[in-house]
Amino acid sequence: MLADMSPPRHKQGFCVWFTGLSGAGKSVTAEALIALLLERGRQVTLLDGDVVRTHLSKGLGFSRADRDTNIHRIGFVASEIVRHGGAVVCAAVSPYRAARDHCRSLFGEGRFLEVFVDTPLEVCEQRDTKGLYAKARRGELPEFTGVSDPYERPVAPELTITTTDAAPEENARRILALAGERGFVAA
Amino acid sequence: MLADMSPPRHKQGFCVWFTGLSGAGKSVTAEALIALLLERGRQVTLLDGDVVRTHLSKGLGFSRADRDTNIHRIGFVASEIVRHGGAVVCAAVSPYRAARDHCRSLFGEGRFLEVFVDTPLEVCEQRDTKGLYAKARRGELPEFTGVSDPYERPVAPELTITTTDAAPEENARRILALAGERGFVAA
Repeated sequence: MLADMSPPRHKQGFCVWFTGLSGAGKSVTAEALIALLLERGRQVTLLDGDVVRTHLSKGLGFSRADRDTNIHRIGFVASEIVRHGGAVVCAAVSPYRAARDHCRSLFGEGRFLEVFVDTPLEVCEQRDTKGLYAKARRGELPEFTGVSDPYERPVAPELTITTTDAAPEENARRILALAGERGFVAA
Repeated sequence: MLADMSPPRHKQGFCVWFTGLSGAGKSVTAEALIALLLERGRQVTLLDGDVVRTHLSKGLGFSRADRDTNIHRIGFVASEIVRHGGAVVCAAVSPYRAARDHCRSLFGEGRFLEVFVDTPLEVCEQRDTKGLYAKARRGELPEFTGVSDPYERPVAPELTITTTDAAPEENARRILALAGERGFVAA
């Protein structure tokens, strides 16, 4: 019998993947989650779609092909980190199901936790934190998810959260509990 | 006194960065090194410049700005993996000193091992594994390192290797010894 040399599960890698409309609350929930993970001694890499577009994906636009490239790229980087035992939190609109499923396929069984931030379009548009919905309605953003480009809702996400009736910390705690159930966070 | 909770050094992250002309022997040495590291139980991510250009850096060209973006991107991904304790091997021409130094700055002290694959241009051109030098000489590659674009030799690399009088495995063993001296590989 071979000795099991794998590190304890709570030192193994996993990825929390936030998907949802612009303004849904992905980044704010991601940050709350990262704070909780850091408190528990886990280093975390945040791959935020907007930030990634300033370096990893500089030059990419919002066509379907460019969006797919952007999402695949985030998935590739995240999966390499997870392969080395790291924890990664990705927050990106990632509107297409096929691209998200491709990313899921890059990870070992159970290591990809898809969290659907299910905030209604009306609410996101009312928040319009970055003024993007107003621009899109004026026709200045020809491929804007929810307005002029589709958002394909997840079919079987690991978790669905709402941000209209729960604070970011509350949602972050639910995600942490899920990661804990899977053994990725020490009890 | 606080207990030291860091993992043993040989489980900590480090990056071996190969720089040198096209055809110098970076990839073949990288592969030999990875084989040795795997034998010693270290998982390794290879970020090979040519391969990276098919996904992480798809769409980038060979202007100075695009080259810098490509190298910074490889450095970013490598440093995130190292931050999580992983081992990364990068093999990229990376002709500009400033871009290499930028990458070095992303890593903790001592974790970036720059290996200069110092193969003379004449030898690289004679090998011309990919037929690129011939193309460059015909003027079909306007920004080709060594022919129509500069290669800035490292000033203080951790190691310089030659490939004209040493086999890849031999060079790989020298690099492994250096990683071992720094404690990144178990004795």
